[in-house]
Amino acid sequence: MPSYTAPLKDYQFVLHDVLQVSQQDIPGFADLDRDFTSAVLEEVGKLSSNVLQPLNAVGDIEGCHLENGVVRTPTGFKAAFDQVREGGWTALDAEEQYGGQGLPYVMHTAANEPMVSANMAFNMYQGLTHGAYSAILAHGSDAQKDMFLPKLASCEWTGTMNLTEPHCGTDLGLMRTKAVPQDDGPYRVTGQKIFISAGDHDLADNIIHLVLAKIPGGPDGIKGVSLFIVPKFIVKDDGTLGDRNGVSVGKIEEKMGIHGNSTCVMNYDEAVGYLIGEAHKGMRAMFVMMNEARLGVGLQGYSQSEVAYQNAVAYANDRLQGRAVTGAQNPAGPADPLIVHPDIRRNLMDQKSFNEGARAFTFWGAMLLDKAHKTGDKDAEGLVSLMTPVIKGFLTDKGFEYATAAQQVYGGHGYIEEWGMSQFARDARIAMIYEGANGVQALDLVGRKLALDGGKHLMGFFEMIKTFIKDNEGNEGLEKDFLDPLKAASKDMQAAAMYFMGSMKNPNNALSGSYDFMHLMGHVCLGYMWARSAKAAMAALEGNAADTAFYETKIATGRYYMARQLPATALHLARINTGAGTVMALDAAQF
Amino acid sequence: MPSYTAPLKDYQFVLHDVLQVSQQDIPGFADLDRDFTSAVLEEVGKLSSNVLQPLNAVGDIEGCHLENGVVRTPTGFKAAFDQVREGGWTALDAEEQYGGQGLPYVMHTAANEPMVSANMAFNMYQGLTHGAYSAILAHGSDAQKDMFLPKLASCEWTGTMNLTEPHCGTDLGLMRTKAVPQDDGPYRVTGQKIFISAGDHDLADNIIHLVLAKIPGGPDGIKGVSLFIVPKFIVKDDGTLGDRNGVSVGKIEEKMGIHGNSTCVMNYDEAVGYLIGEAHKGMRAMFVMMNEARLGVGLQGYSQSEVAYQNAVAYANDRLQGRAVTGAQNPAGPADPLIVHPDIRRNLMDQKSFNEGARAFTFWGAMLLDKAHKTGDKDAEGLVSLMTPVIKGFLTDKGFEYATAAQQVYGGHGYIEEWGMSQFARDARIAMIYEGANGVQALDLVGRKLALDGGKHLMGFFEMIKTFIKDNEGNEGLEKDFLDPLKAASKDMQAAAMYFMGSMKNPNNALSGSYDFMHLMGHVCLGYMWARSAKAAMAALEGNAADTAFYETKIATGRYYMARQLPATALHLARINTGAGTVMALDAAQF
Repeated sequence: MPSYTAPLKDYQFVLHDVLQVSQQDIPGFADLDRDFTSAVLEEVGKLSSNVLQPLNAVGDIEGCHLENGVVRTPTGFKAAFDQVREGGWTALDAEEQYGGQGLPYVMHTAANEPMVSANMAFNMYQGLTHGAYSAILAHGSDAQKDMFLPKLASCEWTGTMNLTEPHCGTDLGLMRTKAVPQDDGPYRVTGQKIFISAGDHDLADNIIHLVLAKIPGGPDGIKGVSLFIVPKFIVKDDGTLGDRNGVSVGKIEEKMGIHGNSTCVMNYDEAVGYLIGEAHKGMRAMFVMMNEARLGVGLQGYSQSEVAYQNAVAYANDRLQGRAVTGAQNPAGPADPLIVHPDIRRNLMDQKSFNEGARAFTFWGAMLLDKAHKTGDKDAEGLVSLMTPVIKGFLTDKGFEYATAAQQVYGGHGYIEEWGMSQFARDARIAMIYEGANGVQALDLVGRKLALDGGKHLMGFFEMIKTFIKDNEGNEGLEKDFLDPLKAASKDMQAAAMYFMGSMKNPNNALSGSYDFMHLMGHVCLGYMWARSAKAAMAALEGNAADTAFYETKIATGRYYMARQLPATALHLARINTGAGTVMALDAAQF
Repeated sequence: MPSYTAPLKDYQFVLHDVLQVSQQDIPGFADLDRDFTSAVLEEVGKLSSNVLQPLNAVGDIEGCHLENGVVRTPTGFKAAFDQVREGGWTALDAEEQYGGQGLPYVMHTAANEPMVSANMAFNMYQGLTHGAYSAILAHGSDAQKDMFLPKLASCEWTGTMNLTEPHCGTDLGLMRTKAVPQDDGPYRVTGQKIFISAGDHDLADNIIHLVLAKIPGGPDGIKGVSLFIVPKFIVKDDGTLGDRNGVSVGKIEEKMGIHGNSTCVMNYDEAVGYLIGEAHKGMRAMFVMMNEARLGVGLQGYSQSEVAYQNAVAYANDRLQGRAVTGAQNPAGPADPLIVHPDIRRNLMDQKSFNEGARAFTFWGAMLLDKAHKTGDKDAEGLVSLMTPVIKGFLTDKGFEYATAAQQVYGGHGYIEEWGMSQFARDARIAMIYEGANGVQALDLVGRKLALDGGKHLMGFFEMIKTFIKDNEGNEGLEKDFLDPLKAASKDMQAAAMYFMGSMKNPNNALSGSYDFMHLMGHVCLGYMWARSAKAAMAALEGNAADTAFYETKIATGRYYMARQLPATALHLARINTGAGTVMALDAAQF
């Protein structure tokens, strides 16, 4: 019953009006003109609406099944995966030498959004493959790259990430999986990994597992972890598939959502594994995947909120219930549509202003990644590193919150699976957990990222906002509605950072406020994005853009965010300032 | 895998230390001494932990099934229902003349909490019966009471509430179900009702449907709605069951949660129906059920958060992951338990301080209902009427939020159905929707309840808080940590109410802030409850209570709420003060 249409104008607005991608001095960006990105995104939008979205409910209802050791994906997934593959959608930003199109990562990100909105569980099969590709690209040997990258770029083979074990998730130092070197060949990997998304399936001929394991005799804890390539089928030197490797599916997990993706327990039994990069330096290689993956998970968060919002708007326009308090709006009908009611508006505006701000934030983060990778810009790298836990943590918390809020518009129909709104909420829920639970993101932000390079990137971010405000002072359209609230919010964020700096002696004071800080910073980032978006929209209107309604809507939506969402920074600061006192007051037994 | 233990000490604390029930001048309350309530609640706690909780997952996994027109409940439900019935747990507060125990409603509420925490879906079968009992008691004829009440009190028969139709939920004036008077007997009811919880099942010999319908020729809209008793099996004059009535199950809905309860489409086809009370006054009778039901739904909200919290605490103590930033707490083990980490604490304290505040608020509401019903106190009636939408709306929003937060403590295991945390969140989600979606609660609060009796009850509530603060000035333990924040929060609430009063000319200004006001007021109510709870705990400690750890924990938990949750009132006020401007700025087509 739900439907989805890619918000193409919004993609274009962020890419061109806000980020001005084609004018960036980053290799490859000059090619990203409006016509080109429009053509690409329109095409992937169609694929998403017509092919992927109709399979979203199918995936949810059927789920994946383990039959005789092999996972069967839901009806239609294989044919759709072939279509995605044939369209080249899996390799937009892969290197041309490995069969990709060599486009910037920001373009991959923009093209990814409609596919994730349309069918998050389905898109994970290629999303994980993309991560595996990146890790091998960054740390693999030339021989490994030649053997695996072309097949991963095309998704002829897919990839997985194997980190978690039954007794360790966040704390990977506790890992037990072992990789034993052999005198006459590659390592042999033995152990059990859990929660392996896309761990097995029938969509590809081979599955390339990236597996973290410990080489016996190496350093204790996280410093003794290495990364291995463990293919499901051994790849022969000529590139053809050989024997089945010693890896098997223990079971498929029953989950709250993303039923269309197979979450597997993977058992490794002396499986052939090829070391990636240096021994004991596995976390470094894994982090390449993880940072990219975290941006992708942030995108999952708001993309579920986006598709849920679209359906909530349709329902609010369609469902007749009650009368507007200011007088009937649909006097000929038995009642007015839900959308006349202020509280329905409030709810929809919350969703809309978040989704659009989150998109700008995510695309900006992707552009920063491009800048870091393609120009070696250390400031860009530091800034996106600072932003990554916020993109992941804030956007997935809010994405779930607003997917749930969209469900609420449907009343009782929202709770019935038939209408599809429950699935958006259930699917969105995982994004708060995987790729580092959001509490861990907050810890990473406050415990590591704020002080990165001596706090340089945090200061750079404050400076960026300050400069933006200064540069636009006197702009009447911006000043009261955008610059003033942004200034206040940024001040709250600075005060919180100052508080943390004063907490060196009692780190619990800072860590008790880490989650609030992640949200505080998320709001500042979205406020900054909205201020930039409003400026861009005003410029377009001044430049006599044809679609005035679009740009006016953009400005009005931004005003909503600044007026009604951004003030949350003060609450987060108030909580942060209370420190660890009340948080740590109880003994464990008193809970 | 999850477990549940009724927090008996907390029940006793609220009933005796905070509310001092046995000293209240309300008929029947003198009997509620500590020993008595302890004995009752301990017993129902055991039943809940041992019988109902183990069936919670069974109900979720199996669900209900329609077989040959009859609904089959999950394995074990029937035997458990018999046990609940035989223990007299369905009739604690029913009138003695109808076989009940005549206890106050507050006692029913306290006894209800563990059953709902243990198995929400199961408990709905008796919860709806309780509502049907109350409606017939308040508005039925003597003959109807004699015929139906004893069987409903014992749950030998169960009850349902039939309001919603496919095209109307909130706006019941659009109702199409018809009740046609007959020359020679009762009405004949025809139409379709949807989302009927416990609509059919195999737990009882008969089901008494309370059905809203229109008598042809009556007034249009909501003023032409009447309430009917429509039994599944016609009851003969001698009380035995006769023919099957013209009511059947169209289908069972597939839902996000509460799978153990059968949510049915009910088709009425010239079913025999008996008018309750006066024709066209059905909403009045229905409201008796609805107000009580809303308090019960608020309880569902926090009771799911409570059971989720208990399991999160157990997991946080059990799961070893990472080290405390201030130094290892479990040096002999491979890692420290999760509970050492400040952000895990923050999360658990959010849950704990909410659950305990919510319980006090709900029991207080139930006591006010007793006072209103048993002494005819109009102020108590007005106050609980004002509180009802807050109990329902705020406690269910937060209950879901914290059930989800508890799930988060489990990381990936929280998303796997096997661990049971997903069910708590999925079950809790419905409480935000049924019995009037929370947006409708906010509308009721701001559009109706604030101005009830000329705003008398709102003023009474402010006065109550003011008096409490004044009476306790100079109490050092309370002043800084409890009274000051309560004063600030109450001031925010007054400012919001003032803003609404100034919005008479543009009601959209008030309604755009209705949802924020519901939450603002919820925080003030919980802040007030915590201030009272802290005072009571301090008094107990001064009185040399034996269990000092319990009372100290209570005070520390209250301090957390006042310091870190109550400041949310300022954010809600800030949003309210922005009025309708940004909320109503867009045309429907601009969404």
